Amino acid sequence: MKGEEMNEATKALKFNDQGLIPAIAQDVASGEVLMVARMNAEALEKTIETGEAHYWSRSRKKLWRKGETSGNVQKVKEIRADCDKDVLLLKVEQIGGACHLGYRSCFSWALKDGTWTEDGVKVFDPEERYGKK
Amino acid sequence: MKGEEMNEATKALKFNDQGLIPAIAQDVASGEVLMVARMNAEALEKTIETGEAHYWSRSRKKLWRKGETSGNVQKVKEIRADCDKDVLLLKVEQIGGACHLGYRSCFSWALKDGTWTEDGVKVFDPEERYGKK
Repeated sequence: MKGEEMNEATKALKFNDQGLIPAIAQDVASGEVLMVARMNAEALEKTIETGEAHYWSRSRKKLWRKGETSGNVQKVKEIRADCDKDVLLLKVEQIGGACHLGYRSCFSWALKDGTWTEDGVKVFDPEERYGKK
Repeated sequence: MKGEEMNEATKALKFNDQGLIPAIAQDVASGEVLMVARMNAEALEKTIETGEAHYWSRSRKKLWRKGETSGNVQKVKEIRADCDKDVLLLKVEQIGGACHLGYRSCFSWALKDGTWTEDGVKVFDPEERYGKK
């Protein structure tokens, strides 16, 4: 995608006062909702350019290529926006798991009998993968 | 669900400084992501009590039962939370369409050749449904 075209798409979006927009990552094959992270304009640009999901890390205050440490990259197959243009939806091929805790999806807690019950599918060992507890 | 139990689940969540948490509504059958709205603690409580999705309307500053005007209610089949407990995922049976523009999903814009291209499925006429343009 040409830079000029990308800018038009980015300009149409409503970033918040910190220049961020939430992006939902969804498994393109299964439809499973994997995670929600934030993008700034640069993260969206990098995502479009490379075909791999980039986000803005609010804790580390830096651009973050998903999977740069864990190898669990997201190959982006489709980018969608909602009617208010203030949320993005990425349909991705998720390598490994999306969740830093080792689950395939971050949404691994179900409300059951009034408590959040962990029922996610573990696909990697985070201690081993990140080399720390 | 008993009020006491609900409170435990609510207390575990990270609401923002306005007391709100984003909630993604996903079609329980097709997996389609339908919309994102905000809940406060009361909206979550009402959702659990009634089995129908309630949100907090930031523009109208009031509790909002999804579909109260349009009839397009969301019957909630499952409530999930992410690993940070700062986003909710509702798996719903969506009556009619989720989007106030008449689409089944709010995510009816796809990024194609650098522009947002409307490609959603229209399921109702918003002018007719809401009695206004």
